[in-house]
Amino acid sequence: MNTFVCFNGEFLPKDKAVISPDDRGFYFADGIYDVIKYYHGKAFCLNDHLLRLKRSISEIRIHFTGIEKIEELAHELIRLNKMEIEYTGVYIQVTRGVYQRMHRFPPEPVAPTVYMNAYPLPPFINEIRHGIKVILRKDIRWQRCDIKSVMLLPNVLMYQEAVENGAGECFFIRDGCFTESTHSNIFGVKSGIVYTHPDSGHILPGITKIVILQICNRLGITVKETPVPANDFRNFEEFFISGTGSEVIPVIQMEDTLIGDGSPGNITRMIQQEFFRQTYGEMADDWDFEKWI
Amino acid sequence: MNTFVCFNGEFLPKDKAVISPDDRGFYFADGIYDVIKYYHGKAFCLNDHLLRLKRSISEIRIHFTGIEKIEELAHELIRLNKMEIEYTGVYIQVTRGVYQRMHRFPPEPVAPTVYMNAYPLPPFINEIRHGIKVILRKDIRWQRCDIKSVMLLPNVLMYQEAVENGAGECFFIRDGCFTESTHSNIFGVKSGIVYTHPDSGHILPGITKIVILQICNRLGITVKETPVPANDFRNFEEFFISGTGSEVIPVIQMEDTLIGDGSPGNITRMIQQEFFRQTYGEMADDWDFEKWI
Repeated sequence: MNTFVCFNGEFLPKDKAVISPDDRGFYFADGIYDVIKYYHGKAFCLNDHLLRLKRSISEIRIHFTGIEKIEELAHELIRLNKMEIEYTGVYIQVTRGVYQRMHRFPPEPVAPTVYMNAYPLPPFINEIRHGIKVILRKDIRWQRCDIKSVMLLPNVLMYQEAVENGAGECFFIRDGCFTESTHSNIFGVKSGIVYTHPDSGHILPGITKIVILQICNRLGITVKETPVPANDFRNFEEFFISGTGSEVIPVIQMEDTLIGDGSPGNITRMIQQEFFRQTYGEMADDWDFEKWI
Repeated sequence: MNTFVCFNGEFLPKDKAVISPDDRGFYFADGIYDVIKYYHGKAFCLNDHLLRLKRSISEIRIHFTGIEKIEELAHELIRLNKMEIEYTGVYIQVTRGVYQRMHRFPPEPVAPTVYMNAYPLPPFINEIRHGIKVILRKDIRWQRCDIKSVMLLPNVLMYQEAVENGAGECFFIRDGCFTESTHSNIFGVKSGIVYTHPDSGHILPGITKIVILQICNRLGITVKETPVPANDFRNFEEFFISGTGSEVIPVIQMEDTLIGDGSPGNITRMIQQEFFRQTYGEMADDWDFEKWI
């Protein structure tokens, strides 16, 4: 199926969207991206995503004035692709634009490249229900992971290793502590307290992470934004991950070791329930996902 | 001028080379590159570059069997662009290919994207002759800089800062020591001994670096592949950088501090002389660069 994409503000069939080999996104990973999830055509945390997109753009010093048009373009993209009644991801990538290859910014004004597409993003039913295994790897990424850049090669390599090991994610370890995973934030539960890495250059400030912190607050669950030492993981009752696509997924096994009894934990389940109510509505009270999608 | 490029083995005018937005180079920086310099149509250290290209490809697990064709394609590219009697850079980029966006490798076989172009790469006369100022910044890059990947956003940002500060490069500092700069290796000279960072995940194994080590050996200059502590830089008489494009460029100022008396050092000059003899031939005995190009 040739879907419509939005390329520099124009709607085109995907195979008509042409990236120049001189695009700085292609040469230098000189660009950023974000993903917004639409539930039946309604964006979740739209403003937070737009603010983060704006921040990423600003941190790498791209001159882009089109942020306020993104919402409208995304809606049109969903409409053109007839995705209003589905669960949809809208992907937005902004690069510094097209110029002959040189490390410095182009010496004359260049329009950024803005590429958007929409794709089906239903809940990961099996993972949400049964939980996933994760593998553990050293966090070898750069130190500005707070910028949602397209510098994702280490994420790609480590996620591939996860897949090859029958796992659903890879937890990164830096300075002895879990930072995040290849495309999700990490949470651990110990003695009923939820732990997650504080915002820093070593993790992306997850929007779903913030929603989870709010949910914990409402449920009266104590949260500590403190790094979890990797070698202490056996003392944790539960782990779970969060992300725009992942939503909230329990972690039931770390490498060869089961977490708790190897099934999703109670606090994870409470948080999932609340999260799904916010996103999927009342039908979330019934965990029969097949009915949802 | 619309030059010819080589795109997946075909020669095309550059504006006919079409990168898909689904190219993993564009989405994930899931690709590598190399640059070979041609002196009057003759490649410098061709085999070393091809070996490094092959290693980069292998380290990120791209299946690419076309290495042995690169030499021929590069020659044809130079011929088509009528660059045989010039100094030319041949840029080669290989990505994991085109597939709908997913972090894992494509689950079915996908041909890598192979993009090559040729561009004028004359010596940086002013820099070679007079030396450059450099700025100093924390090395925030990932820890596999030995792979020549397109994950160059930090290099772009720091080189831009150098440009804005009237400098010609930015030296990276990790764990208190100079690693490399945004697109060159670093050498320091102290008490007549040449120091440079040993090969590791924190630097690219420079091909020009190896040539310089050989030159030092021939000239009877002692080399220590030992990291240079940044806070010791005032005790060094000379610094210089090397790279395929940079060749050998003296560093005469670090931030606000002059190196030595603020002019290129003697050992740097000896190494430059030898390097230029190897690359530019006998005319290198005369430093009148205007005659060379």
